Amino acid sequence: MSDSISPLAPASFPTLPPVAGVQLATFAAGLRYKKRADLMLASLPEATTVAGTFTRSLCPSAPVDWCRSILSGGTARAVVCNAGNANAFTGKAGQTAAEFTAATVSEALGVPANTVFLASTGVIGETLPTDSLAVGLTQLVGQLANDQQPATWEDAARAISTTDTYPKGATASADADGVPLTVVGIAKGSGMIAPDMATMLSFVFTDASISATALQSILSASVDGSYNSITVDSDTSTSDTVLVFATGAADNDEITDPTSPEALALKKALDAVNLDLAHQIVRDGEGATKFVEIEVTGAASDHAAHRIGLSIANSPLVKTALAASDANWGRIVMAIGKAGEQADRDKLAIWVGDEQCAEDGWEKPGYSEAAATEHLKQDEVRIRADVGIGTGRATVWTCDLTHGYIDINASYRS
Amino acid sequence: MSDSISPLAPASFPTLPPVAGVQLATFAAGLRYKKRADLMLASLPEATTVAGTFTRSLCPSAPVDWCRSILSGGTARAVVCNAGNANAFTGKAGQTAAEFTAATVSEALGVPANTVFLASTGVIGETLPTDSLAVGLTQLVGQLANDQQPATWEDAARAISTTDTYPKGATASADADGVPLTVVGIAKGSGMIAPDMATMLSFVFTDASISATALQSILSASVDGSYNSITVDSDTSTSDTVLVFATGAADNDEITDPTSPEALALKKALDAVNLDLAHQIVRDGEGATKFVEIEVTGAASDHAAHRIGLSIANSPLVKTALAASDANWGRIVMAIGKAGEQADRDKLAIWVGDEQCAEDGWEKPGYSEAAATEHLKQDEVRIRADVGIGTGRATVWTCDLTHGYIDINASYRS
Repeated sequence: MSDSISPLAPASFPTLPPVAGVQLATFAAGLRYKKRADLMLASLPEATTVAGTFTRSLCPSAPVDWCRSILSGGTARAVVCNAGNANAFTGKAGQTAAEFTAATVSEALGVPANTVFLASTGVIGETLPTDSLAVGLTQLVGQLANDQQPATWEDAARAISTTDTYPKGATASADADGVPLTVVGIAKGSGMIAPDMATMLSFVFTDASISATALQSILSASVDGSYNSITVDSDTSTSDTVLVFATGAADNDEITDPTSPEALALKKALDAVNLDLAHQIVRDGEGATKFVEIEVTGAASDHAAHRIGLSIANSPLVKTALAASDANWGRIVMAIGKAGEQADRDKLAIWVGDEQCAEDGWEKPGYSEAAATEHLKQDEVRIRADVGIGTGRATVWTCDLTHGYIDINASYRS
Repeated sequence: MSDSISPLAPASFPTLPPVAGVQLATFAAGLRYKKRADLMLASLPEATTVAGTFTRSLCPSAPVDWCRSILSGGTARAVVCNAGNANAFTGKAGQTAAEFTAATVSEALGVPANTVFLASTGVIGETLPTDSLAVGLTQLVGQLANDQQPATWEDAARAISTTDTYPKGATASADADGVPLTVVGIAKGSGMIAPDMATMLSFVFTDASISATALQSILSASVDGSYNSITVDSDTSTSDTVLVFATGAADNDEITDPTSPEALALKKALDAVNLDLAHQIVRDGEGATKFVEIEVTGAASDHAAHRIGLSIANSPLVKTALAASDANWGRIVMAIGKAGEQADRDKLAIWVGDEQCAEDGWEKPGYSEAAATEHLKQDEVRIRADVGIGTGRATVWTCDLTHGYIDINASYRS
């Protein structure tokens, strides 16, 4: 974790309820960081179902390969995450380290290896030291064997962090035909963040009873509007992972139909947790001083609106103008023009906050640049563009591009 | 022009020969800048043919619309360029200003309006003041009427500049069946630079006699390996324009077949000028401290190699690592992975300068990070990646991402 906390950070880590059946442990294994926990284990009860989505990078990390290979089993008994070393682009040794981790936890907990999920985040291209890892894993399992709750959600969120400036957690609840359900998630990420699973890890836990197939269905729908709608720097990681675990301890009737009222109630809670975590990642964007919401309307389709939104959100010229509170809406026009999606230049309308800058492809008469600038001086800002083609709409979130981003990335080895 | 010159700038503006028939004039019209020429006119003799390529932005500027509409005529008698105001996203008034400019020059020079090419660069969304423009155009035509050569190539290159820190010019010569041909180009651009015509203007002049169709054919082939292979910040302008004018004054037999030896000789000279100008634009990249060549081999196709090259070249994480002389090749793996083109992770090979960092999807045994770092400390650096799929290859050029980029773009209104 960095020393200086993002100005956009929440006031404090939220109060998160336990999720029945989930046990957490953390340990300072010294894999890269010193004097902080960098290894996290969550143990899960029998019958826990799992769903996941992963980076679309064509050079994924060994843990991503591992998780993909076991996901179809649909059950999980543990998830292990280390910070500081991504175990990516480490060839056969990386695969061996992943298998070693799963085997070690499998044996210690007495669960099948193909129910042990893995995630690693940090430097790419360095081999994960299995000796330190073995020591750490033994410690973690030992803590759990003492039948205590050795780590809190906040401890776990801190243990999986790299350049994050604050730990990230969120919760929501749902009602499944009278049975209360709890959803809790933790996440990490602040750079190498782009859609198609930003450079981020997110682990979400619920006590709901739900089939793996139904869980996967609601998760896949949930990531589009959350993790896949944020960007910090357009860079997509080799390691992005979202895993959702459902312990079933709430004892609701098992949800098997992803369109049932109970599934939709759970999805709503899952959406809330995922969006909250996604926003927290953007708020921790490397060097960020502003949290930016970009809404695109009037596009040919929702997908087109999403692409236009990301073109604006990823434009270095838009992001630097935002950093300077400069209502330079010409750069927004530029970013819309380069998105490769239909836009009617002569019908374009652009708003900064509530101030409309442009309409019908030209500066709006009476536009007040002072009002737009005033809006941009806040630390939460809104941009809206209507591209005059159809009814497609999307919202994406990003942050500004500042000297802080350069400071962090011209020195940190990620 | 900026006060501090890019550390990557050429030692001096090159010595450029005249191109028979081309007359240049510049004037300080005060359209945005004070105390410097910001308006340029090149007058061209009868029978001058023209070819052009333009931004792929779907929100192009009024001058781009104008040039596109007259290009099919194939002849040119003048080109006018102003700096400081892009005349983009200015609705009907922008179109009127473009037509006014062409009509004014048409009348003053006694040439058809549809042979007067236009380009504007600068702030988007502000109306071009036609009154100042009229004064300036009258001045320019008056200078030419005095039958002198009122401006040099360097004057012209300076007059079209915005955030450029130095004027850009290049020349090459060719032999068309015994007749010597001259090619001279000037260009501007240092930010909002991405492929599909970077935010740049380039005007190239030759005394060759060549049909407009043949000229367009060799130009279109030439831009792919030059202007479309550079990127500063991935941002594509509304105004990108490359125009080539052939006066025919060299009196060679008119070239009509773009595959003839004479056409190929001319294309070679045109390629050299375009590549030189493209490299000068990257060397003037906003905040650039390093000129970076990225070669991708082993891709599924040349097009795939080009896309992978640009994914590396546009990655903020790669660019900040280069700024810090950090041989962080993991970020190159990340950028290859996100390019969306086939790559075999387990056959990937990466070089920094002549030092091979990775082979077969892993750090190469004996890799010397010190050697790679030493290479990166230079101001001209090379990266190579072989992605292990096929025989496609491409080279692209970019610069690093530094505090200077933030300084320039968090203040300049472009």
